[in-house]
Amino acid sequence: MLVLGGGFGGVGAAVNLRQADVDVTLVDRNDYHTFQPLLYQVATDLLESSAVGHPLRGLFHDHPHVTVHSGDVTGIDLDARRVTFARRDPITYDYLVIALGAQATFFGVEGAAEHAFPLYTLADAVRLRSHVLEMWEDADRDPALVDAGVLNVAVVGGGPTGVESAGALAELYRREFAKDYPGVPQDTARIVLLEAGDDLLGMFRADIRRYARKALTDRGVEVRTGEVVAKVGPDGVTLRSGEVIPTRTLVWGAGLVANPLVKTLGVDLQRGDRLPTEPDLSLAGHPEVFAVGDVAWTTVDGSDRALPQLGSVALQAGEHVAHGIARRVEGKPTEPFHYHDKGTMATIGRGAAVAQTQGGHTLKGRTAWLAWGAVHLALLSTGEDRAKAAVDWTWAGFTHERSGRISVRTDPP
Amino acid sequence: MLVLGGGFGGVGAAVNLRQADVDVTLVDRNDYHTFQPLLYQVATDLLESSAVGHPLRGLFHDHPHVTVHSGDVTGIDLDARRVTFARRDPITYDYLVIALGAQATFFGVEGAAEHAFPLYTLADAVRLRSHVLEMWEDADRDPALVDAGVLNVAVVGGGPTGVESAGALAELYRREFAKDYPGVPQDTARIVLLEAGDDLLGMFRADIRRYARKALTDRGVEVRTGEVVAKVGPDGVTLRSGEVIPTRTLVWGAGLVANPLVKTLGVDLQRGDRLPTEPDLSLAGHPEVFAVGDVAWTTVDGSDRALPQLGSVALQAGEHVAHGIARRVEGKPTEPFHYHDKGTMATIGRGAAVAQTQGGHTLKGRTAWLAWGAVHLALLSTGEDRAKAAVDWTWAGFTHERSGRISVRTDPP
Repeated sequence: MLVLGGGFGGVGAAVNLRQADVDVTLVDRNDYHTFQPLLYQVATDLLESSAVGHPLRGLFHDHPHVTVHSGDVTGIDLDARRVTFARRDPITYDYLVIALGAQATFFGVEGAAEHAFPLYTLADAVRLRSHVLEMWEDADRDPALVDAGVLNVAVVGGGPTGVESAGALAELYRREFAKDYPGVPQDTARIVLLEAGDDLLGMFRADIRRYARKALTDRGVEVRTGEVVAKVGPDGVTLRSGEVIPTRTLVWGAGLVANPLVKTLGVDLQRGDRLPTEPDLSLAGHPEVFAVGDVAWTTVDGSDRALPQLGSVALQAGEHVAHGIARRVEGKPTEPFHYHDKGTMATIGRGAAVAQTQGGHTLKGRTAWLAWGAVHLALLSTGEDRAKAAVDWTWAGFTHERSGRISVRTDPP
Repeated sequence: MLVLGGGFGGVGAAVNLRQADVDVTLVDRNDYHTFQPLLYQVATDLLESSAVGHPLRGLFHDHPHVTVHSGDVTGIDLDARRVTFARRDPITYDYLVIALGAQATFFGVEGAAEHAFPLYTLADAVRLRSHVLEMWEDADRDPALVDAGVLNVAVVGGGPTGVESAGALAELYRREFAKDYPGVPQDTARIVLLEAGDDLLGMFRADIRRYARKALTDRGVEVRTGEVVAKVGPDGVTLRSGEVIPTRTLVWGAGLVANPLVKTLGVDLQRGDRLPTEPDLSLAGHPEVFAVGDVAWTTVDGSDRALPQLGSVALQAGEHVAHGIARRVEGKPTEPFHYHDKGTMATIGRGAAVAQTQGGHTLKGRTAWLAWGAVHLALLSTGEDRAKAAVDWTWAGFTHERSGRISVRTDPP
């Protein structure tokens, strides 16, 4: 079996084939698995890269049925059952799991592709962190640049990524950078959260949404709903109203489009170029091919609504595919996939988070924050990384110190 | 007071001026302090960058007399008492501490500057780590490359840097990569340690040197003494004998030359371009200027032998300069510097290290290794990083797992 992609979907599938006596080859473009829900913490120095990116090969040390390779997929031939790679021999498969993820889409906004900072990959997070540090170094060299907006940040998208990024940036500015750069006047620095819809965190209940807005505002974030970005330049963002927000840092948490490789499959794609799946997560006409995670369009039982692009959906889908292939190998039919929604959480800052279960229970404030921390710690895959994340976490939460705010320039001097 | 450089010497000087009511400006080209003795551990994935690079600004959060800036020094005018920087206004000083460190020198060996990997900065360590991972990924794509030498490493220099790097690489290969890349035949991969002199670790006693050689050989390192590198190319190293070692990875632990800026000072330099100091560590004719650390040529009391380029020398020298400036401020004369040699240690691998005190006491094996770990943990500057290093250490030493062996590509895809 060949698994393309080492995110939650791909890893979920590969790990769970252990019992099934199936040899698995997993190929990812990177040599690590990314714990995507915490990327914003890497971008804002709450966690180090290595707490969020786990060596893929290491995840499978105790799974001899899994072979991991690094490689960039260049083509998938569904008829020949063959995948080609850059700089690596092609691989033929009996079963294929497409778990190739997505990438940011900028909805055609002028200048966004050039200037915006998406936050989907670990490289995105590292890039954003370095950029923010650079802006502060610029301000340290020439404090007059602060009034020109060099420290301003605009965050696009009022979903969890945008809310968490804006909240974490505000705390990074007001707490940590205030200590690191006592000579930089940051009073006029703005962190602006832009959401096109009526409210933040649309999937949450009204009381949660009100709390989130207040918690962000209390932390100095300007929350602007009903605002659409019209144009992005190197020094500013223009809204549809004509208003210009001077900034060199536009964080883009506003939309995903599936990995462009799926366009070559000859399949009718759904919204966001996602691959429509059968109830068992296979592709129509290709019972040996499955799609899971952000690349897939899997409808909620009986509706035309798709499951959201969340790590928990991808992980459960990957596990289900493993289960389905195991059944096939035993000569049994596959079963339809049902997503078990265990709830949604988002954190706004130290001591401030929101959570909501499918049953309608909600949590907010410090309790939600502690719960959020516990859940994410529990989710981090390996004992080692859990230990390290715990250390980072403890220090960040309780001593108000952060780790590793350094930029290692590896260009030749 | 102006301190140029945030290594052991510069930080030692700045921290210790706390009591003296002297305002200190410290400028480094990076925003972090590097714990250089552990760089080889970053290069071989025993530690993460952030365990070895500490945010400089963070080191001085509780030292309001110290202001930290990032900047590249472009010139020092000793007569005008003025230092110029790239992209930053010049700074004039009453006292100046030159702690600008050194860089690798290749003794004119053809091709070394282009192809060798020095190990003096954190960026060097990160670059070497990424390169080694790339070589393994190449071997994973095409195992035939192993016989062509793609996994071979040559390490130049039988001092602590070379010994520690060779030992750690051997363990990385034989233990970790064996698990990560079970399909790569590494039996023919060579790790060759090249030393021009008669023996490794020349500063240690004979029994220690014998032990080190055996411990390295036991770990699969080819120890070659009396060998001089004549030429370096992208695919191999040519020895003076004419022998060619096929390798794409030459680790250079063989020589330092002071930061080239000192050549512009109009001072007669000593060997390795180092700045000769008076007994109180000031420059002759410039009692307001001090030089400490790898950039300085400080003779041992009454001899023409210079103190070695070690972190402990730099740290003590920085502390001494702070002490001297404090005395000057009080109208007292400075005092001569005496280095207190607390001993030298080097580690060869898990459970194998050597140590020797000035009094002639030696330790080797597991006891020395544990002592080495304890000393380095104690030296790591902040509580936070100590905690994190301890976690990394524990896992590396006792569970035989390593942390964070990932390469984050931040180039746009």
